[in-house]
Amino acid sequence: MNVARTIDAFRELRSGLPEPVGFVPTMGFLHDGHLSLVRIARERCPSVVTSIYVNPSQFAPTEDLADYPRDLNRDLALLEEENVDLVFAPEEGVGLYPAGFDTWIELPTIASRLEGVSRPTHFRGVATIVTKLFHIVEPDVAVFGQKDAQQALVVHRLVRDLDFDIELVLGPIAREPGGLAMSSRNIYLSPNEREAATALYRSLQRVERLYTAGEHKAENLRHAIREVLAAEPLVQQEYVSVASPADLSELETIEGRALVSLSVRIGKTRLIDNTVLPPGEPLL
Amino acid sequence: MNVARTIDAFRELRSGLPEPVGFVPTMGFLHDGHLSLVRIARERCPSVVTSIYVNPSQFAPTEDLADYPRDLNRDLALLEEENVDLVFAPEEGVGLYPAGFDTWIELPTIASRLEGVSRPTHFRGVATIVTKLFHIVEPDVAVFGQKDAQQALVVHRLVRDLDFDIELVLGPIAREPGGLAMSSRNIYLSPNEREAATALYRSLQRVERLYTAGEHKAENLRHAIREVLAAEPLVQQEYVSVASPADLSELETIEGRALVSLSVRIGKTRLIDNTVLPPGEPLL
Repeated sequence: MNVARTIDAFRELRSGLPEPVGFVPTMGFLHDGHLSLVRIARERCPSVVTSIYVNPSQFAPTEDLADYPRDLNRDLALLEEENVDLVFAPEEGVGLYPAGFDTWIELPTIASRLEGVSRPTHFRGVATIVTKLFHIVEPDVAVFGQKDAQQALVVHRLVRDLDFDIELVLGPIAREPGGLAMSSRNIYLSPNEREAATALYRSLQRVERLYTAGEHKAENLRHAIREVLAAEPLVQQEYVSVASPADLSELETIEGRALVSLSVRIGKTRLIDNTVLPPGEPLL
Repeated sequence: MNVARTIDAFRELRSGLPEPVGFVPTMGFLHDGHLSLVRIARERCPSVVTSIYVNPSQFAPTEDLADYPRDLNRDLALLEEENVDLVFAPEEGVGLYPAGFDTWIELPTIASRLEGVSRPTHFRGVATIVTKLFHIVEPDVAVFGQKDAQQALVVHRLVRDLDFDIELVLGPIAREPGGLAMSSRNIYLSPNEREAATALYRSLQRVERLYTAGEHKAENLRHAIREVLAAEPLVQQEYVSVASPADLSELETIEGRALVSLSVRIGKTRLIDNTVLPPGEPLL
């Protein structure tokens, strides 16, 4: 496995990889969710590239950029076990945002909803770094996780609208025993908080059961989630959404597919989770 | 010469071209300025691609999108004479802006100055279509004209900030006898207006002489341009700028290079022109 710490070094190594190339971008501190995406890329492509970069432009000044967990050596050992061919792990200050950087990808509608309400510049940062990484890595296939469902929809729209010649593949949400969606930020949770956090998945399971039993009114499903979350005093609810995957507009009645998503705070930690209705349907 | 009218047809033909590929994007109604850019691409690359597309997103609703001159058959004949290998001339409604299109490239600082004052969404449209065309054409070299100097700076910034692996080359301004910069919009000018329009180049020549004689105060150079233009009653002045090529901020004193640029209206026609100081220095 090769590791490139600069764009030039990466391009040199990338040019020797057999096509097609599968790509899994990450912010590091890898867990089984990331590794499941790497395996999806591996199944589809003779070459697999992963990036590890905590992208500053998707964090607001008030957010946890400085505290975001990092462990490059551990990450590289995990990727080596997965037979990744090439890792792009730019050094701090390697110039992804050079002085005078002033070019941004904006998706005004889809980026302003759900996560965008409390994180108004987040998806601008995501779309911009994904575009940059796509230009550096030049993948044929890119694998993202459904855990970040809105991010997946933003990238899907980005690929379509800007004519990237890249196949986008989503991997399912990897969960801890108990149902908590895997996230690098789970490390912030105390044992009590981690227990309370299982309410997210429990609320989504309840919605799946209600939907399957015939409840297609979105407001009743949102209410069912809020009830489950309200039973956990440590959980502060943010949004609870039953929305169209096309543009994330909130639905009244579910006729086709729906993305059910929610965000909460538990102590200082912000957590998100989601499911697609009908259960088992793909998000994209 | 092959002509592709859809993205899929283009990609199929593009995949057979020997590398490196040089690319000249145009809005058609070609003149010798465009053809000089094609020749620059030809000198550098075994394969040359040109696009012909009047990009709606860079026109404001009040501008001349519907009236913009078009003559595809004439354009294709001219490109064939220049031994262009492949032309991307998407049909109207071929889907470069599909329903729900919502992804834009923004360069907040550089795009807001000069042309951006009277055309606030123009460079958003330019940067977005250039990004799309770069993803479709996948060129190694892209050739733009210095006539649209701010556009060249926007694309230069775009390529750098978003890590496009593309070499950007600028071609010099092609001029009519008398000095008028070639432009597809010159067809709008009456004979009297065309005569008046030579004042643009005369004003720039005066500035070059003054600079060479030692005048490095930007305000004195702007004043010299305004005097030449004011002598032509048909010319309505818009901006007259002596700015840093780095960010288009207006200069007080020219120490390094300067972009001297101006825009005017003559009747219904908007014209722009520019030169770089010291004379003969490259813009980029």
